[in-house]
Amino acid sequence: MIVELISTGTELLLGEIVNTDAPYLARQLNGLGFDVLYQSTVGDNRQRITKVLKTALERSDIIITSGGLGPTQGDITKEVTAKLLKRELKLHEATADRIHCFFAARHNNMPNNNLRQAMIPEGAIVLDNERGTAPGVVLEQGDKTVIHLPGPPRELEWMFQNRVVPYLKQRFGGQGIIYSRILHTTGIGESLLEEQIKDFILAQNNPTIALLARKGEIIIRLTAKADNEAAAKVLLDTLEEKIHRRIGEYIFGHDEESMEGVVGSILAAKKLTVACAESCTGGLVTSRLTDIPGSSQYLIGSVVCYSNRIKMDEIGVPEKLLIEYGAVSQETAGAMAAGIRKNYHTNIGLGITGIAGPDGGTENKPVGLVYIAIEGPSGIQCYQHNFTGQRLDIKYRASQAALEVLRRYAVHL
Amino acid sequence: MIVELISTGTELLLGEIVNTDAPYLARQLNGLGFDVLYQSTVGDNRQRITKVLKTALERSDIIITSGGLGPTQGDITKEVTAKLLKRELKLHEATADRIHCFFAARHNNMPNNNLRQAMIPEGAIVLDNERGTAPGVVLEQGDKTVIHLPGPPRELEWMFQNRVVPYLKQRFGGQGIIYSRILHTTGIGESLLEEQIKDFILAQNNPTIALLARKGEIIIRLTAKADNEAAAKVLLDTLEEKIHRRIGEYIFGHDEESMEGVVGSILAAKKLTVACAESCTGGLVTSRLTDIPGSSQYLIGSVVCYSNRIKMDEIGVPEKLLIEYGAVSQETAGAMAAGIRKNYHTNIGLGITGIAGPDGGTENKPVGLVYIAIEGPSGIQCYQHNFTGQRLDIKYRASQAALEVLRRYAVHL
Repeated sequence: MIVELISTGTELLLGEIVNTDAPYLARQLNGLGFDVLYQSTVGDNRQRITKVLKTALERSDIIITSGGLGPTQGDITKEVTAKLLKRELKLHEATADRIHCFFAARHNNMPNNNLRQAMIPEGAIVLDNERGTAPGVVLEQGDKTVIHLPGPPRELEWMFQNRVVPYLKQRFGGQGIIYSRILHTTGIGESLLEEQIKDFILAQNNPTIALLARKGEIIIRLTAKADNEAAAKVLLDTLEEKIHRRIGEYIFGHDEESMEGVVGSILAAKKLTVACAESCTGGLVTSRLTDIPGSSQYLIGSVVCYSNRIKMDEIGVPEKLLIEYGAVSQETAGAMAAGIRKNYHTNIGLGITGIAGPDGGTENKPVGLVYIAIEGPSGIQCYQHNFTGQRLDIKYRASQAALEVLRRYAVHL
Repeated sequence: MIVELISTGTELLLGEIVNTDAPYLARQLNGLGFDVLYQSTVGDNRQRITKVLKTALERSDIIITSGGLGPTQGDITKEVTAKLLKRELKLHEATADRIHCFFAARHNNMPNNNLRQAMIPEGAIVLDNERGTAPGVVLEQGDKTVIHLPGPPRELEWMFQNRVVPYLKQRFGGQGIIYSRILHTTGIGESLLEEQIKDFILAQNNPTIALLARKGEIIIRLTAKADNEAAAKVLLDTLEEKIHRRIGEYIFGHDEESMEGVVGSILAAKKLTVACAESCTGGLVTSRLTDIPGSSQYLIGSVVCYSNRIKMDEIGVPEKLLIEYGAVSQETAGAMAAGIRKNYHTNIGLGITGIAGPDGGTENKPVGLVYIAIEGPSGIQCYQHNFTGQRLDIKYRASQAALEVLRRYAVHL
C-alpha cells in the first residue's frame, strides 16, 4: 500500500509556517506499516491542486490531504476532489447540525460560511471532528482511497488517531508492521562511521540501516519489518549488538534520548554532583544540563569565565599559568576544572576553554581549538579538539564534546 | 518563472525530521519575486526521484532540490538527474582538490567515498560549498533549470545566499522585485499587537503587513512591490514610521538582527560591561550573549547559581533574605543582580530567578514565575513575569525578557 501525503496551503509555500502535519502523518503511518513514498505541498489553487491529486491517484493507493477544509472561499479541497472523482457536493444534514451545536455550545451564532464545511461529496464517509468544525472525508474510488483531513495540527492529530486509524485498520488490517530504533553517536564522523560498519550496510536487508548527520552527532537508524513487536525487537537487538561491538564506545543514547538527558540520568543515579567553568562555550554546557527537569540534583552551579580576571579571581587559575601557557591551553583547562570543583565542592569539575572565532585565532592556536578538562574521583583528564565551522557550530560541538567527556567519566565512576 | 522545490531524504518521509529547508527556500525565493508553486518530498530511491523530477520538469521552470549530495551510496540526486538529462557524470578535478583540502585543513585523510561528491554531470555549473564537502550543481537544459543543493540547513542556507542568489540575479534579473522588512517585537502578545495596528492591517495594500509569532517574539513583516530598491525603501520607511509611533517601544530590531546582537551592539558602543547571575535560565542568557562575536568586550563573566549555597557563597545573597523571601523572589533577584555586579566589577549586573518546572511550583509561586533584576548606574529595577509553556519555553522566554530588560536599561545610559 503506497501512501501519498498532500499538504495544501499557500502559507506553506510561502514558507511562513513549517509543515508539521506531514512528518506527523508520516511517522504514524510508518508505525502502522504503510509506506509513505511521496509528499507534496501545493497552494490554495484549484488547477494546481487538481494536477497534484491526479498525479497522486496515478502512483499511490491511499492519498491523505491536510488543509483546505475551512469555511472560507480559499478552502477548496473537497470541491476539487469532488469534481475530479465526478461526485456531487451535497449538504450533509448531520454535519450541519454538528457545526450548529459546536457554535451553540460556545454561545455563538454560526456564521453562514461555516455551512460550506457541511458540503460533502456524494458517497463519502464523513469523519466527525471533535476538535473543530471541519469534518474529515474518506472517498473510495475503485482501489484508490482519498482521505481529507483539516490542517490545524491539534485537529489533524486527533482526527488521525480517532478516525483514520480505526478506518485504516478495518479496511487494510493485517499488514506487516515496521519498527525503528535510533542509535545516537558522537565523536566519530559520518564517513568513518560508515566505513566501520560498511559490511553491515552493504548486506542490509531486514533491518535496514541508515546513517544521518545531526547537530553534533551522527544517528544510525535501524528499521525492521516484522509481524509483531517481539519479532521486530529480536531483529533490532541482534543487529544493534553487532554494531555495538564495532563502535559501541561512540553510542551515547537511543531513540528520543538527548546527550544532556543521558548525562543527567547517570549523574542522578550515581548521586554525583558537577560544576562547570566555561569559557568558549559561554554557558551553553550548563544551559543544556539545566534543560533537564530535576537537574538541580546534580548541577550545583557554574562560572562563565569570559575574562582572565574571572578565571583567576573566581576559579583560582594561577596568573603565571595564564601568562606561560595562555588562556587557551591544556594547563588552563585543567586548572579551571580543578578550581571549580574545589570552589563549588562538587564530585566533578569540568573546564572548557577555546577559540570560538571568528577572530582571535593564531597559527599555533587556530579558531576551533578547544581544550576540555575534567577532574573528579578518578583524577584529571584533558582532551584537545579542533572543531570546524562557524562560531555557533564550534560552541555547540564543544558543548557536545564536553558533555560526552562528562558522560564517559561519570559512567566509569 | 515557476519554481518547484524537491526535498529528498527517506528521513523526511519517515517524519523523523521536519523539513526546514523547503520553507527557508520558499521565503527567500518569494522575497526575490519568484513564485514557488509546488514542493515535493521523495525518499532516496532512484525510480521515485526520477518520477518526481520528470513531473517537475513538465510543470515548472526552475527546480531546486535539497539533499542527496553526500558521500554515501544513498546519495543519488546527481546520478538521477544526469541520467534523466542524458549527461555523463565525470570527476571534477577542482572539486576533488577542494574536498581533499577540506580534509587536510582538519588534519584528516579524505575517505574514498567522499570522491563521489566530486562527480559532476557534464556541462553543469559547479557551486563551491564553503560550509561542507558537497558542491552544489546547476544544470541548464533548454528553458529549464535544475539546481541541486546539499540538505544540511547551514550548508543549504549559505549556498543559497552566496551561490544561488547571484546566479538567479545574473540569469533572471530584472523581474518585478519584492522587498521585505522585518520588525522584531517582544513583550507584547500577538492579539494585542494586532489591535494596536489593526487599522494599518485592514488598509494594507502596498506594502502588505503580516504578523508572525516566533520563539519569544512577534515579528511584523512589511512587503513592498516596487521597481527598484529606492522606491521600495520609501514605501517601507513610511509605513514603519507609522507603526513605530504606535508600538515602537516593543520593537527591538530589524531584519536579520537578533536580540543578543542588538544588546551587544548597544553595550559595545557605550563601552558598558555586564555580568549575570542566572538561576532558572541556567546559563542561557550568558550563552546567548556569547553567541555574538566580540562579546568578550562587554560580557565579563557569569555565575549559574543553581543552589542556594552558590547564591550565598559566590554572589553574596544574604542567607536571611533566602529564608525570609525564598530563592524565587524580587528580593533575591535584586541581591543577585547587585552581588554579581559588585563581585565581577561590571557596570551592570543582571539577576534572574524563577521556576522553570515542570516541578517545584506552589500555589503562591507557580511554575513560570520569574523575577528579573538589573542594577547599574541608573539604580536597580526588578520585573515579575508569569510565563506559560514547557520547561524549555519558560527558560527561553525568561532569557528573552532578561535581554530585553538589559536592552532597555543600557539604551538609556
